[in-house]
Amino acid sequence: DIDRDRLVETMEEQAAIGGTDGGGLNRLALSDADARARDWFVERATAAGLDTRIDAFGNTFARRAGADSDAAPVLVGSHLDSQPYGGIYDGALGVVAALEFVRTLDDHGIETRRPVEVVNWTNEEGSRFPPAMQGSGVWAGAHDIETEYEKTDADGTRLVDELERIGYRGSEPAEPREPYHAYLEVHPEQGPRLDETGADVGVVTGIVGLRWAEVTLHGQANHSGTTPMHYRNDALVAASDVVTAIRRLPGTLGDRTVATVGSLTVDPDSVNIVPETVRFTTDIRDPDEGVLETAIDRMTAEVAAAADREGVGYDIEHTMRAPSVDFPERPVAAVADAVEDLGYDGRRMVSGAGHDATHTASVCDTAMIFAVSEDGKSHTEDEFTSWPDCYRAANVLANAALDLAGR
Amino acid sequence: DIDRDRLVETMEEQAAIGGTDGGGLNRLALSDADARARDWFVERATAAGLDTRIDAFGNTFARRAGADSDAAPVLVGSHLDSQPYGGIYDGALGVVAALEFVRTLDDHGIETRRPVEVVNWTNEEGSRFPPAMQGSGVWAGAHDIETEYEKTDADGTRLVDELERIGYRGSEPAEPREPYHAYLEVHPEQGPRLDETGADVGVVTGIVGLRWAEVTLHGQANHSGTTPMHYRNDALVAASDVVTAIRRLPGTLGDRTVATVGSLTVDPDSVNIVPETVRFTTDIRDPDEGVLETAIDRMTAEVAAAADREGVGYDIEHTMRAPSVDFPERPVAAVADAVEDLGYDGRRMVSGAGHDATHTASVCDTAMIFAVSEDGKSHTEDEFTSWPDCYRAANVLANAALDLAGR
Ligand SMILES: NC(=O)NCCC(=O)O
Ligand SMILES: NC(=O)NCCC(=O)O
Repeated sequence: DIDRDRLVETMEEQAAIGGTDGGGLNRLALSDADARARDWFVERATAAGLDTRIDAFGNTFARRAGADSDAAPVLVGSHLDSQPYGGIYDGALGVVAALEFVRTLDDHGIETRRPVEVVNWTNEEGSRFPPAMQGSGVWAGAHDIETEYEKTDADGTRLVDELERIGYRGSEPAEPREPYHAYLEVHPEQGPRLDETGADVGVVTGIVGLRWAEVTLHGQANHSGTTPMHYRNDALVAASDVVTAIRRLPGTLGDRTVATVGSLTVDPDSVNIVPETVRFTTDIRDPDEGVLETAIDRMTAEVAAAADREGVGYDIEHTMRAPSVDFPERPVAAVADAVEDLGYDGRRMVSGAGHDATHTASVCDTAMIFAVSEDGKSHTEDEFTSWPDCYRAANVLANAALDLAGR
Repeated sequence: DIDRDRLVETMEEQAAIGGTDGGGLNRLALSDADARARDWFVERATAAGLDTRIDAFGNTFARRAGADSDAAPVLVGSHLDSQPYGGIYDGALGVVAALEFVRTLDDHGIETRRPVEVVNWTNEEGSRFPPAMQGSGVWAGAHDIETEYEKTDADGTRLVDELERIGYRGSEPAEPREPYHAYLEVHPEQGPRLDETGADVGVVTGIVGLRWAEVTLHGQANHSGTTPMHYRNDALVAASDVVTAIRRLPGTLGDRTVATVGSLTVDPDSVNIVPETVRFTTDIRDPDEGVLETAIDRMTAEVAAAADREGVGYDIEHTMRAPSVDFPERPVAAVADAVEDLGYDGRRMVSGAGHDATHTASVCDTAMIFAVSEDGKSHTEDEFTSWPDCYRAANVLANAALDLAGR
């Protein structure tokens, strides 16, 4: 069993870095606050006697030796970056639970057969630089590092420049430097299902596929008072038409499909100017890749039809394509066994959020443990997971990871 | 006749102040560029021998004495502020034409019976601080100066602080200091009707009424992947529903009604967060006040229905209410006579844009002259009025104003 008080204390330590007045976090990837969180992680890992190394994409690994130094290590961790106004659990809980695992091994003087590594992935959220799960994606070979280096934020700042600026462009290649035995990650569920069903913990069996796109509509700026309605090419009217269509898209496909327009900007954005350019994002998810393809086709058709009705041009850029993943039975069984041994009420489920586990799954056996998200709130300062729920999930990780690492 | 070359030269002088790479202007009210344009105006007015004074709201008057110093003056002018990316004619043409009028009187050694004043009104555009036509509105008593001082821009900067900063909070009360005989204003049409009908110049007989509002929708931020569709309270979906309804609003009311959502912002504005708060503006216009009231009622009903469908809250703040204005026959006849004397093809029309003339009309006899807007483009860098069209409109102003001022 891990140390409850130390878990809470460590969670509170990290929550103070980039903490907001609203009790959440503003720790966007590669910001100053993210840099301070990374420094804190390195310091805590070093204090726990781990060897840390930083790869060329800023992913940070902290290793505890195993009895058999040639055995493939077990990797555990998550991410310390946050949404612009996110909660204190999303990502951090997985890193803290992983640290707690190795600290607990020390507490009990346990030597594992396999080495154990704790990882803090770069830019899981993707809200400053798309795509999400970027660091793990580069590491797993899903993305080309040079392409990702060139990604820019809304201010036009390049990712690689921010990585250099905060001192986290490491010397190690951003790739698995040896075979890995397994990857386990604790994360808040971020949805309402555990809370609704009264379960203690989620045994995650896979992750939905996701597709992000950025749509730009090109209309014609004009005066709102003197331009007759039939003279207009209003980019915002066309965009709004698509937003309401996307709200209805899932209804016709399946009960697991979700589709969202989360970001939208208008140019020139003046009360008395017909909007010229509107950019918005789409985020579409489903466990079934076939449904996803149909959904993308429909979204594209909606954009084309709305643009045509309003006489505006359009571009669609596909910014993220993360495949649907089914976790293999072995690591899922390790998690399910730990849940049972601890006497918790576990619930098997598919994750609706993307996770770094999406990418590690292509490198090694992967599974996840979900902590209860009260009311399912996520990506908001109101995110909440009780300390007992944090503790339960971290405890499952420790037991499942120990099982996989071997005594 | 005014001096064509000097008119063009003076237009080009002002266009260099706050000029954009795209050949337009970025001279938002009370910005540094607006301050430089004001300084330029004072300098040019002083060079023309006029006495300038600045009122407590920054409206700047430059006076040429008349033979009868007790006679009510004739006021001519417009505004030098611009949209974020506007053209070089909107506003500036009216100020330059007014300057040209007094310069031409000097060229010909003409003494008018009445004093003539050239005015540069503060914040006609209203795109940085609502409402539009603010300086003339304060001057005419339509707005309370203390309330308008407190208006803030998107960054929260107060108007009065900007007025002080740029040195244009004058000592004179912001009100008519004596009765005025008439107000005339030249302005680009900003719509397509003169261009379409091949007319030389517009004889403006009135101005539509306009209503601006700011609508805020209050939803609930949540994760775009894990939040089932039926759990969502998406502020952007509700807003989009209203935007498409507002596009159709005019169709059912009258062929002169226009309705626009020009500005819209999303918070937190992240690809994978269900939008929590959306703010947007509405701009509804019609020459008929009854139609306007019906349109506002329908807009309000659309907001309520959309908010209800999506389970979000809402506020509506009414930020501008400018009444529909019919100009009296006397100043309109002065304009129409000048058009006829000059042999131009004039077209009588109602303005779809609000103008400072909306407010001066409550103080003194008011009329306007429109210059042709090529393709009707306005509030964009692509705004264009040919020099011959600028010249024709300025010439009509000079002749009509001379008629009203008396020789
Ligand atoms: N877990 C999580 O929120 N990841 C960010 C990517 C996503 O939106 O699913
Ligand atoms: N003329 C003009 O564009 N004035 C600004 C107010 C309006 O939008 O009509």
